[in-house]
Amino acid sequence: MLFIAKWRRKHQRMTSVKSKPSDGKPEEDVVDPWTVKAVDDKGVDYDKLIEKFGSKRIDKALLKRFEKVTGHKPHHMLSRGIFFSQRDLDFILDCYESKKPFFLYTGRGPSSEAMHMGHLIPFIFTKWLQDVFDVPLVVQMTDDEKFLWRLADADEALRLTYENAKDIIALGFDINKTFIFSDMEYIGSQPAFYKNIIKIQKCVTYNQVKAIFGFNDSDNIGKISFPAIQAAPSFSNSFPQIFGEDDVGKTPCLIPCAIDQDPYFRMTRDVAPRLNYPKPALIHSVFFPALQGAKSKMSASDPTSSIFLTDTPDEIKEKINKYAYSGGQDTEEKHRKKGGDCEIDIAYQYLTFFMEDDARLEQIKKDYTSGKMLTGELKKELIIILQKLVSDHQKQRKAVTEKMVKDYLTPRALHFKSK
Amino acid sequence: MLFIAKWRRKHQRMTSVKSKPSDGKPEEDVVDPWTVKAVDDKGVDYDKLIEKFGSKRIDKALLKRFEKVTGHKPHHMLSRGIFFSQRDLDFILDCYESKKPFFLYTGRGPSSEAMHMGHLIPFIFTKWLQDVFDVPLVVQMTDDEKFLWRLADADEALRLTYENAKDIIALGFDINKTFIFSDMEYIGSQPAFYKNIIKIQKCVTYNQVKAIFGFNDSDNIGKISFPAIQAAPSFSNSFPQIFGEDDVGKTPCLIPCAIDQDPYFRMTRDVAPRLNYPKPALIHSVFFPALQGAKSKMSASDPTSSIFLTDTPDEIKEKINKYAYSGGQDTEEKHRKKGGDCEIDIAYQYLTFFMEDDARLEQIKKDYTSGKMLTGELKKELIIILQKLVSDHQKQRKAVTEKMVKDYLTPRALHFKSK
Repeated sequence: MLFIAKWRRKHQRMTSVKSKPSDGKPEEDVVDPWTVKAVDDKGVDYDKLIEKFGSKRIDKALLKRFEKVTGHKPHHMLSRGIFFSQRDLDFILDCYESKKPFFLYTGRGPSSEAMHMGHLIPFIFTKWLQDVFDVPLVVQMTDDEKFLWRLADADEALRLTYENAKDIIALGFDINKTFIFSDMEYIGSQPAFYKNIIKIQKCVTYNQVKAIFGFNDSDNIGKISFPAIQAAPSFSNSFPQIFGEDDVGKTPCLIPCAIDQDPYFRMTRDVAPRLNYPKPALIHSVFFPALQGAKSKMSASDPTSSIFLTDTPDEIKEKINKYAYSGGQDTEEKHRKKGGDCEIDIAYQYLTFFMEDDARLEQIKKDYTSGKMLTGELKKELIIILQKLVSDHQKQRKAVTEKMVKDYLTPRALHFKSK
Repeated sequence: MLFIAKWRRKHQRMTSVKSKPSDGKPEEDVVDPWTVKAVDDKGVDYDKLIEKFGSKRIDKALLKRFEKVTGHKPHHMLSRGIFFSQRDLDFILDCYESKKPFFLYTGRGPSSEAMHMGHLIPFIFTKWLQDVFDVPLVVQMTDDEKFLWRLADADEALRLTYENAKDIIALGFDINKTFIFSDMEYIGSQPAFYKNIIKIQKCVTYNQVKAIFGFNDSDNIGKISFPAIQAAPSFSNSFPQIFGEDDVGKTPCLIPCAIDQDPYFRMTRDVAPRLNYPKPALIHSVFFPALQGAKSKMSASDPTSSIFLTDTPDEIKEKINKYAYSGGQDTEEKHRKKGGDCEIDIAYQYLTFFMEDDARLEQIKKDYTSGKMLTGELKKELIIILQKLVSDHQKQRKAVTEKMVKDYLTPRALHFKSK
């Protein structure tokens, strides 16, 4: 909360004067499931985004309630404002408090074998939420979406589902509480899921998806109807094997995701009451910045734009040292005098995502800002953390067998407290 | 051929001067999967439709080849031009001649429990084709379509699938060669089917379905993507249980259907080469006219518009006598002198669909046209045929057990000559 929120508050002030494009209108950030484009060098204006999307900021009172209700200190991604926005999180805490069942739903579009650190954020946080709440989790792998948008081959999309599933499983999700599914496989093996898809499709017009997602008349009809497929797992009766054949879709759902996915769930929340289902609750994260700075985009095809889960310790070291955009001064002398700028320093920003120790992070901020700590020293802190994180991940991923992947992806009953 | 073709030839001459609507353009017949609207009292101008759709008339040479290749005299619905139009039927005859496998695909939108005689036409003809060719048949029940367009309740659509399936099974399709499926169930039980659906969706834009089907921006996104679902069964690898897990979709398909369904398959034929699949072949029927005449529309909600499969012998008698539009003269005296007009007489038209005896039908035409046969006598001929047809059907339908329905609708291997 402390760091990112301040960073954003200042950032908002700093970007109040926007550049103007040729048509005279001030340029705006573009945030949708396919495009994240910031006007300002420091990245997306999240306060404006909250206002535009109509979600709510996760404030101190809510964090306090979270801690009180769950008995758990909020995860550092919550307390530092990385997960910063929400819809109906209070309602989910009500459920937890009154021991009413609910479930978690998150997902991934398997467009590439090379997952980077940013891709892990929602999963690391979701894993923590699952441990805290002890509830079932469904993870949608939208291989159909990736085929409709990007990949030439449907079988390749399915293969990437299985590859990416290994990275997700490696994070340690409890198999008794977690169901990972490929759209291409699950739609073809669960009539209840398809039934929800057409129920949702019936409630949404082309005009609506055009307005929400910016589709146009040249888009293929698979894209146009896809939003219903990402919406359907929000409703518990899409999973009779988990919630029972008699479930009528009333078990509420909490969706942790990056905020670019919100348009899907705004649409879902509009549709839910018409189908007599509860609206899914949401908890949104900021975007994980590219090494080159918050305005550039991470790209799986540009290995220098992020740290990948397959990088070696040396590659990590080299990338951070070479590419991580620095908020430090040009010379040591100047740096000692003026200090570094944490608000634009990518190594520092990455630390806010991955360094668990609040006190140590606060100290680093102080020392870097004052000039006591040099850029190289700051980067070294990050390199050590990422090297360990990535090499641990690689070990855990190696331990994931084909059989384990198959087990996680098999529709089956799950075991959880509220059942 | 003889009767209907002549009727249409004359009809075309008679309707060369079209009425003009207020915008000055000549009015045109509207034929799409949801609307059949004829300008002329005698019904749709099929010659114009063939030209507009780009299909080919089934001519004498093709009928001769059909008989030569199959060793079967063409069904009376073929020889009388009720199935009058085709695409690539020659190619299917090539396959049969060279003993290459192919399959039949037809379907029904289960919008109502009350099926009428018109609904049976494609199934009666398809059954005959299956007997002649000894090939597998897949029957798609588009309950998802009916839910997206009309019915309030998805479960009701599924129930109607099962009810209508009984009427189809009652026609005597060989269970060893026939797979009937509900979209809502089969999409959710066969990943290969969903894979073909998204492959087709990826090849078709909103612009295209707008042009082909007349969709507009206020249509729901389920409607917009549905054409891919009706297209998918044209490709054999949507049915690995029938054609084998290794099938790559190369087994050609022949689709018997009323010509209003052609837009779906024009789209399918455009897409097929891009997916490396053969284009489905087609054989189109004319529309079954309403009792009140070829221009009115049969409606399941208007019991006087057609003969239903649930009608009693007395109801059939009363409906034909009371509502069947007559081409006879006002008085017996005038009729004996001037004779009746078979071209507009609905009882006569119905006989062309259901009276198998060509010589008897020709005699009736002669006697009715000359005035020797009165309207009441003509209607009596039809009443006897329909009473027997419907009561036989009711007996056969009664013999269809729930278990039989389940068996026909279970995905399974089929047995056929070319396998």
